[in-house]
Amino acid sequence: MPLKFEIKHRSGEHAGRTGVVTTPHGSFKTPAFMPVGTRGTVKGLTPAQIESTGSEIILNNAYHLMLRPGDEQIAQLGGVHAFMRWNRPILTDSGGYQAWSMADINTVDEDGVTFKSIIDGSKIRITPERSIEIQNNLGADIIMAFDDCPSSVAPQTQNLARRRHALTKRDGELSVLEHETRLLQSLDRTARWLERCANFHQRPDQQALFGIVQGGTNLDLRSRSVEQVCNVELPGYAIGGVAVGESPEKISEVVKFTANLLPDKKPRYLMGVGYERDLVTAVASGMDMFDCVLPTRNGRNGQAFTRKGQIHLRNAFYKADTSVIEEGCSCASCSGGFSRAYLRHLFMSKEMLSGILVSQHNIHHFQSLMIDIRLAIEDNSWSALPQRWPVLLSP
Amino acid sequence: MPLKFEIKHRSGEHAGRTGVVTTPHGSFKTPAFMPVGTRGTVKGLTPAQIESTGSEIILNNAYHLMLRPGDEQIAQLGGVHAFMRWNRPILTDSGGYQAWSMADINTVDEDGVTFKSIIDGSKIRITPERSIEIQNNLGADIIMAFDDCPSSVAPQTQNLARRRHALTKRDGELSVLEHETRLLQSLDRTARWLERCANFHQRPDQQALFGIVQGGTNLDLRSRSVEQVCNVELPGYAIGGVAVGESPEKISEVVKFTANLLPDKKPRYLMGVGYERDLVTAVASGMDMFDCVLPTRNGRNGQAFTRKGQIHLRNAFYKADTSVIEEGCSCASCSGGFSRAYLRHLFMSKEMLSGILVSQHNIHHFQSLMIDIRLAIEDNSWSALPQRWPVLLSP
Repeated sequence: MPLKFEIKHRSGEHAGRTGVVTTPHGSFKTPAFMPVGTRGTVKGLTPAQIESTGSEIILNNAYHLMLRPGDEQIAQLGGVHAFMRWNRPILTDSGGYQAWSMADINTVDEDGVTFKSIIDGSKIRITPERSIEIQNNLGADIIMAFDDCPSSVAPQTQNLARRRHALTKRDGELSVLEHETRLLQSLDRTARWLERCANFHQRPDQQALFGIVQGGTNLDLRSRSVEQVCNVELPGYAIGGVAVGESPEKISEVVKFTANLLPDKKPRYLMGVGYERDLVTAVASGMDMFDCVLPTRNGRNGQAFTRKGQIHLRNAFYKADTSVIEEGCSCASCSGGFSRAYLRHLFMSKEMLSGILVSQHNIHHFQSLMIDIRLAIEDNSWSALPQRWPVLLSP
Repeated sequence: MPLKFEIKHRSGEHAGRTGVVTTPHGSFKTPAFMPVGTRGTVKGLTPAQIESTGSEIILNNAYHLMLRPGDEQIAQLGGVHAFMRWNRPILTDSGGYQAWSMADINTVDEDGVTFKSIIDGSKIRITPERSIEIQNNLGADIIMAFDDCPSSVAPQTQNLARRRHALTKRDGELSVLEHETRLLQSLDRTARWLERCANFHQRPDQQALFGIVQGGTNLDLRSRSVEQVCNVELPGYAIGGVAVGESPEKISEVVKFTANLLPDKKPRYLMGVGYERDLVTAVASGMDMFDCVLPTRNGRNGQAFTRKGQIHLRNAFYKADTSVIEEGCSCASCSGGFSRAYLRHLFMSKEMLSGILVSQHNIHHFQSLMIDIRLAIEDNSWSALPQRWPVLLSP
C-alpha cells in the first residue's frame, strides 16, 4: 500500500481523531492543512519557507501542470517532487474542478469533459483515464479521482442558479426537481468514472488514489454517493462540493452527516475548506485533511489572519503601527520583526515581499491552529480552543 | 567619524586595493557590490535571503522612500534599518538622479529641482538641504550629496542628444560647445550644492556623506570636478554620471582617469556600474564600491548570470534542462537544486518565485566575483581571473 494511516488519539468529546499518514515521501500529522501550490509553487515561497510554516504536505493542481509545462514533461524531469524541490508528501487534485470552473466552454458527456485551454484556447479533453494518466505522470503521493461535479462548480452553478431563478418565477417545484435529477445523474456518472479511475491507475504501489463523495447539500444524495464511492476499496476518501457558497451551518451539517458514513480507518479529506471555524467543526466531525487557498490568496491581497480575526494591512490605520502582525507568533514574518507599517508600505508599493511575508504568516497561522486542534483532541480540551483562538467565537 | 576605511592589501599589478569599511551598522569588505533595494526591499527577497547572497551592504533610493511612505514616517518608525529589518550597512542615494530621470516634468534652478511626484502628480521640490534632510530621516550609514547631473541623466540627455543631433546637421562645433558650457555650469553648481549639503548635514557622527564627481566623458571637466568636490573634506567620494550609454572603453578611460585623482585613503564609489568586466576594470583603477540593478532587474526578466555569460531562461532550449543555472554555484537557487526547466516553467507561468530564485543567484554571482576580485588582489593573481570568469574575455 502506498499509504499508511495510523490513528493515534480519539477525542472523548466528539468524532475527531489525530493520526499520522505515511507516504513514499514521508509522513504528515493529521488533522493536516495543505497549502495550495497550484503551478508547482506555493506563490512566492521557496520550499524552505514552506517548511518553516510547519506544512508537511502541499497540494498541486493537475489541471494547471497538465497545461504547462505538461505532465509528460514533468514525468521526464523526474516527477513533481523533483521538479519543485519539495521532498515531502504532495497531493494532486484530478483537474475536474478546474476543468469546470475555469474553462471558457466545456461539454460533458459519458466519457469525459472537453474544454478550452486557458493558455492557448486549444481544445482539451479529460477523461477519467486521462486524469489518472496526468496524475501518474506528475507522481504525487495522493491522487484524486476524476469526478462529475456540476452542482458544485462555478459556471454551471451560476447557469443553474440563473435558470433556477427564471424557472422559480414560473414553477419553483420543477426547477428543484430538475436540479435533483441532474445531481442524481451526476452522482451515478461519478461512480462509473471512479471505477474507470481505479482500473486505469498505473502506479497503485506509489500513489494512493482517493475517491470523492459528492451530492451537494442533499443528505440522501450524499448517502447514496458514499455508498457508491466506498464500494471501491481505496486508501482514502474525500468530501467534495462543499464551501461553494453555502452557509457555515450548512457546510457543517453536510460534513458531519457525510464524515460519519465514511470508513473510520481511512483518512478523510474535506476539499477546499476553509475558514478556521469550518476546519474546527469538520475536525470534530471526524475529518483529517484540508486544503484551502485562503492563507495564500488573502495574504497576497493584504489580509492577514490573526487569532482574533483577519486584519487588512492596506488600511491607513497601520501606517505607523510598529507591531508585527500577531504578537508572540513564531512565523518567519512575525519573529523576523516585520512591522505592520512596513508590510503596509510594501502592499502600497506593490512589492512582492508583501505577499511573501503575509503568506508565510497566514499558512503558519493555519498550521498553528492544526497543532492546537491536535493537542485539544489528545488532552480532551476541545472547549478551551476558543480561549486561544477567539476568532472561533466571532459572529 | 561615522565611517572608518582600512586598506588591507594593495595589488602589485594595478591600482586596486582591498579593505574594510566600518559603519555604525557593521563592516563590509571592499571592493564591495551593493544590491539595490529601491523601496526598502530588494525585490522579493527577505533580509535573510539577501544575506545568503553574501551581500554586506545594500542601497536604498531616497527618492522613492521620500515619496512613499515618506522620510519622516520612516524616521518615526526608527529609521530605514529598523523599517526593513536589515541591520547591516545601508547607503542611500540623494534622489537627484531619480528626480531627473523619472519625473515627468522638472525644472532646475540655482536653489534646487522641482518635479512631479510619480505617485500622485503633486509638485515636489528637492534642494540640497531637503535631500540631506530626507537622508538624515532615513538614517542610512552612507548618504550621498545632491548633485546637478544634466549631462548624465535620461530625459535631459535624450533631449540634449536630440538637440545635438539637430544642431550637428547645422553646426557640430556649436552643439559641442554648448554641451561643454552646460556641463561646466552644472559642475560649478554641483560644487556649490555640495557645500550646502555638508553644511546642512545634521547627523555627521552617524552618517557618512559622500561627494559625487561629475563631468561626463570630458577628462578636463572630471579633473575640475574632482578638485571642487575633494575641496570639501568628506569620508568618501563617488564617481557619478558614467554607464549612461557610453562604450565600456569610454567608461574604463573615465574611471581610470578620475579614480587616480581621488584621495587614496578614502573609499571610492562608482555609481550604477555595471557588468562584470566594468567592475573588474574599475577595481583595477582603484574603485572600492559599486551598485547596480542588473542582477535583480535581469533576474526578474529571466536572465541569469553565469561565469560564461548570461542565459535567457525563457528560452525553449531549457525546457527539459535538469541542470541548475550554474554547476557548482553555492547560491540558494543552485545549491537548492532548482533546475533550469523548473525556472523556465516559473517564468512562463509568471510565478513570483522565478524572479526570487534568479535574483538570489544573480546577486550571489556578483558577490562571488567580488570575492575572487579581492583574492586576486591579495595574491597578485589578477591575470588569472578570466580563467574562473570567462565572461571577462567575451567580446
